[in-house]
Amino acid sequence: MSDVTVTDLYEVTMALSYVREDMRQDATFSLFVRDLPAGRGFLVAAGLEPALDYLSAFRVGPREVRDFAEALERPVGDVEPLLGLEFDGEVRAVREGRLVFADEPLLEVTAPLPQAQLVETYLLNQVCHQTCVASKAARCVLAAAGKPLIDFSLRRTHGTQAGLQAARLSALAGFAGTSNVAAAVRLGIPASGTMAHSYVEAFPGEEEAFRAFARAHPGPVTFLVDTYDTEAGVAVAARVLAELRRGPGCAVRLDSGDLGALARRARSMLDDAGLGDVRIIVSGGLDEYGVDDLVRAGAPVDVYAVGTRVGVAADAPYLDAAYKLVAYDGRPVMKLSSAKVTAPGRKQVFRRPGCADVIGLYDEPPPEDAEPLLRTVMRDGRRTGPPDTLDGARARFEADLAALPASARRIRGPKAPVPVFSPRLAALTDEVRGRLTREHP
Amino acid sequence: MSDVTVTDLYEVTMALSYVREDMRQDATFSLFVRDLPAGRGFLVAAGLEPALDYLSAFRVGPREVRDFAEALERPVGDVEPLLGLEFDGEVRAVREGRLVFADEPLLEVTAPLPQAQLVETYLLNQVCHQTCVASKAARCVLAAAGKPLIDFSLRRTHGTQAGLQAARLSALAGFAGTSNVAAAVRLGIPASGTMAHSYVEAFPGEEEAFRAFARAHPGPVTFLVDTYDTEAGVAVAARVLAELRRGPGCAVRLDSGDLGALARRARSMLDDAGLGDVRIIVSGGLDEYGVDDLVRAGAPVDVYAVGTRVGVAADAPYLDAAYKLVAYDGRPVMKLSSAKVTAPGRKQVFRRPGCADVIGLYDEPPPEDAEPLLRTVMRDGRRTGPPDTLDGARARFEADLAALPASARRIRGPKAPVPVFSPRLAALTDEVRGRLTREHP
Repeated sequence: MSDVTVTDLYEVTMALSYVREDMRQDATFSLFVRDLPAGRGFLVAAGLEPALDYLSAFRVGPREVRDFAEALERPVGDVEPLLGLEFDGEVRAVREGRLVFADEPLLEVTAPLPQAQLVETYLLNQVCHQTCVASKAARCVLAAAGKPLIDFSLRRTHGTQAGLQAARLSALAGFAGTSNVAAAVRLGIPASGTMAHSYVEAFPGEEEAFRAFARAHPGPVTFLVDTYDTEAGVAVAARVLAELRRGPGCAVRLDSGDLGALARRARSMLDDAGLGDVRIIVSGGLDEYGVDDLVRAGAPVDVYAVGTRVGVAADAPYLDAAYKLVAYDGRPVMKLSSAKVTAPGRKQVFRRPGCADVIGLYDEPPPEDAEPLLRTVMRDGRRTGPPDTLDGARARFEADLAALPASARRIRGPKAPVPVFSPRLAALTDEVRGRLTREHP
Repeated sequence: MSDVTVTDLYEVTMALSYVREDMRQDATFSLFVRDLPAGRGFLVAAGLEPALDYLSAFRVGPREVRDFAEALERPVGDVEPLLGLEFDGEVRAVREGRLVFADEPLLEVTAPLPQAQLVETYLLNQVCHQTCVASKAARCVLAAAGKPLIDFSLRRTHGTQAGLQAARLSALAGFAGTSNVAAAVRLGIPASGTMAHSYVEAFPGEEEAFRAFARAHPGPVTFLVDTYDTEAGVAVAARVLAELRRGPGCAVRLDSGDLGALARRARSMLDDAGLGDVRIIVSGGLDEYGVDDLVRAGAPVDVYAVGTRVGVAADAPYLDAAYKLVAYDGRPVMKLSSAKVTAPGRKQVFRRPGCADVIGLYDEPPPEDAEPLLRTVMRDGRRTGPPDTLDGARARFEADLAALPASARRIRGPKAPVPVFSPRLAALTDEVRGRLTREHP
């Protein structure tokens, strides 16, 4: 099944009409998030690289024509005008890892109208979800205040593809590892994981389980200590670890109960046993709020493993993103009805110090001290440079995060910077609105 | 990348230890949901078929061994004891489409311990997510009270695989179609979709847009009427539709604003124009709550298109599901610490009239009037019958839904039936708890 057919049917019905009417002039669509979800002071741009992979390979071949015809319940001949259609347009986009805010285009596609329309659904799918999860992971990094984080989300993500994406996006945001083997191998990021409660239960007792684990794994080991009674589990782990002398890198993992209190008790027991270098890993229903609570309480936690809530971005599992036509054949356009008004025209985001962003027109001169965020990443359907790397995206994220105002970095009640329109964009918006209101009184 | 490596690393570390210790006796793991999310009166079992596909194909080959070794940072030779491992166990499961409640096993795997452990992550990933989305879609079907629903979620699902799953699961729950072309073709379900606001904007005006659409599409057409001013849009659509005389199947779509009020106004305008057979489709941020509001208000809506909130199960995007070892080598086991106690032993769910379910032991005689829900669907690693069909799952869902108590069917404040333990299961739980408490005082 080709990715070309992973699309909403209406993209196909519209494209067929455009081709029939010979409406092949250049259109610009702008992909942006209307409002940030509650509890988000920023978004981390993500999903661009998979989107560019898709556009690079986009081609309506005979099989896609047959599938489109089947979905439309039309003869294949009716859909043949789309045969051979490829994406040969331009993409200007915010690179992965950059911080973005409401109304700021994450990408703008300029291409002949049928092409630019047909790719809508897939681009939204990739960019919405990935920006959503990357932003959640980024907040965990903020909450952990320098301590390493591990992605444990695979068992609860929306399918396995989403699990792979969650591992990639959390690595982009600075996580130290993932439990997901396929993701770790494919992306070259560290894999992490030790034992489940079932492992301990399969042995007569905890001590037998821990010793057997150490027999199979000669390096540093992590023991899960909360299968029966956590304090007793820590005592057993301390005894076995003291004998093993596996050195730094060993750890105990707490997965239930009052993680802060148990971490303090475990730390004290381990220290008393001369195991000051044995680390404490906590997991179990954590996200940035849980991590923040533990950090603020001064819990002696060395590593935070976060899963479900981060992998599905549980408190805000989607973004209110749109892919809107802003110009066609040189004419700026916009939608008027109800509250969903969008500004017309091709745009640029000018970042000024402190994320005091200005959204302007793509060809206007940048304000003083401003950096344009949208770069031309694809021209004539080809990438303008080599594919981006995860390290590059992470470096951009870290630099942007360091420059983000404290009010937007807050875990609770963050306040996102609100971009302003440039005078030229504001004037164009008024002008187009006025014209449309006269035409559709 | 094989699905075998789509797993948490700890499954591999544990399996290696089990093999080293020659712990290959049969283990039973039970996959169940601990608590239903707020706002759910039932769950719809789903994800079994993809899980069985995975188990049927499960084999640790040389490539998987290399990937496991890379993730573990161990020599390939250390992982070779897993080479050739396949799944040749038994699966007892609740068939897709059946309703289930808290603590009821959705499936139980009985297999040699290393195998039964290695498949944990993938099974949880499939069953959690799919049961979650199917349950959300089912509530939309209840809310729509007989009116057809269409899945529009692809642009906001967590990746494209999740979009395909959402289309399948909503069809399972009785949706009439999906916008997702790939899903429609692959699953043989109707595809649905017409035009976006961008289409209308690309023309000089709505009338030109609607006429052009009708030129490209000779059958029944749907016009999107809220690009500029909804009432004016309905008037234009009515004029064009009256001229076209395309007969029943034509529709107008409302995508923003006060959908109930606009639907009433549109209905009245269409009726006045002699277009009583033109239908009204509504969309835009709907889920079961929005649909319920419209139905209760008597809005003259013919088709509900639901997207984002259903495709990501926005109000409950994950389930608190677990895959717990309940027996090993003939010995029932359980976890004790904190609140996460699970009952030991292989189980059966006995459904009595009105969903007054009893969770018992797998080999106990059924209570009177009770139907056992868990069936043996895989034996010796092979399906016991042909793969299930979507139609079969839908039929089971419809039958179960008809028998569900009204309090569980409510859209707001539903009350889920609470299964009870059979006396034998309760006695076993007490016995194992007592033994473990003596051993881990």
